[in-house]
Amino acid sequence: MTQNIYDDPAFFAGYAQLRRSRDGLDGAAEWPVLRGLLPPVRGLRLVDLGCGYGWFCRWASDAGALRVLGLDVSERMLERARAANSGLGIAYERADLEHLSLPEASFDLAYSSLALHYIADFQGVARCVHASLVEAGRFVFSIEHPIYMASRAPDWVMDGSGRASWPVDGYCREGPRTTDWLAAGVRKQHRTIASTLNTLIAAGFVIRQVHEFGPSEDQIAALPELELERERPMFLIVSAER
Amino acid sequence: MTQNIYDDPAFFAGYAQLRRSRDGLDGAAEWPVLRGLLPPVRGLRLVDLGCGYGWFCRWASDAGALRVLGLDVSERMLERARAANSGLGIAYERADLEHLSLPEASFDLAYSSLALHYIADFQGVARCVHASLVEAGRFVFSIEHPIYMASRAPDWVMDGSGRASWPVDGYCREGPRTTDWLAAGVRKQHRTIASTLNTLIAAGFVIRQVHEFGPSEDQIAALPELELERERPMFLIVSAER
Repeated sequence: MTQNIYDDPAFFAGYAQLRRSRDGLDGAAEWPVLRGLLPPVRGLRLVDLGCGYGWFCRWASDAGALRVLGLDVSERMLERARAANSGLGIAYERADLEHLSLPEASFDLAYSSLALHYIADFQGVARCVHASLVEAGRFVFSIEHPIYMASRAPDWVMDGSGRASWPVDGYCREGPRTTDWLAAGVRKQHRTIASTLNTLIAAGFVIRQVHEFGPSEDQIAALPELELERERPMFLIVSAER
Repeated sequence: MTQNIYDDPAFFAGYAQLRRSRDGLDGAAEWPVLRGLLPPVRGLRLVDLGCGYGWFCRWASDAGALRVLGLDVSERMLERARAANSGLGIAYERADLEHLSLPEASFDLAYSSLALHYIADFQGVARCVHASLVEAGRFVFSIEHPIYMASRAPDWVMDGSGRASWPVDGYCREGPRTTDWLAAGVRKQHRTIASTLNTLIAAGFVIRQVHEFGPSEDQIAALPELELERERPMFLIVSAER
């Protein structure tokens, strides 16, 4: 099954300190882009793959979604979600996305934020999500950008004049990447952008929009340290239609 | 209009020495991938945007294409193409892809190899090509990969242990990149993968396949220096359908 790093105490404690954990969706710089790719959720049946603290499920419920199923591999995350982000129509359930099973033709929208890059069998996820959506249903998700993830030493390199670049290596070699982030030995799965898109297309999806997230001018004005994030994209965001 | 670097004598002389210039399609490592994305060309009407020496036009004519229109901004290229790669159904014409104009619903396949990254108005190209294709017509093209192009210093960086990485910076800042390649001051246009795909989608295309080219195991066995090219993708290849 998936490495459940979220139940590692050090990781869980570190994760709790992230801006996106403390402040919810508004603490995530890429949320405005993700939100912009969503259909109006009022009346829709949603599933959130890797719901974490449940911020999105709560937002969707507040925005009038009919039913919201939040899935996560971590019981600790789910406890936190149930305590902090319960709401009308929301159900939280434990599920290993590596072996995902969903009822057929049951959702209008599948959503996932920064979870699927932990999953080795993305083809399995794509097929399962496709079958679980109704006709013209949407699959909107973010993952860590493969430019960000590919390298054996994913960190900025400064040149003589103090300008930053991001080293890319191993991009064409897909597979696990192990890094220390909040805890030692976090295992992620590197896939090229092409692989991610072709897997969706092969599963029957039509690609509607692709976004490689860098901060907007407004976001940099509000938080100048984000400027550096324009040098390379941090997140890949995709909207696909069944 | 487009910078016509191909008419620069130094560039033209250097270009003539490239493997892909000397050996044609078989001298281009990515050709097998491009070819794999093409429909059978027998009986089709084709346009080649940036046809260069005309290797592809000749190949398509030999493979039974009904009509092949090779367009290039460089008269020197076209002279060479007419001399070296004339064939049944082939016409070579001068055209500035920056201000492309094509007859409507006249082609079954639009092809372009490593030309569109010189063009600032990719939206104009996408719309024009879309209108020029018949229903279900294909647009298959390669460009320099944006990971390759983004950086202000696009060259390998070696770490202490002699392992190579490719520096990425400025990825989220689209626009011109000037490099010295065969001649000084070659101007290319950096676009993110997302931009390229979204522009095609907005023009009405459905994305069928995306490929980020790195050499295959067989190619590396035959030409070991290609190994390095797996560290970062050199070309982006897209198949889109009207």
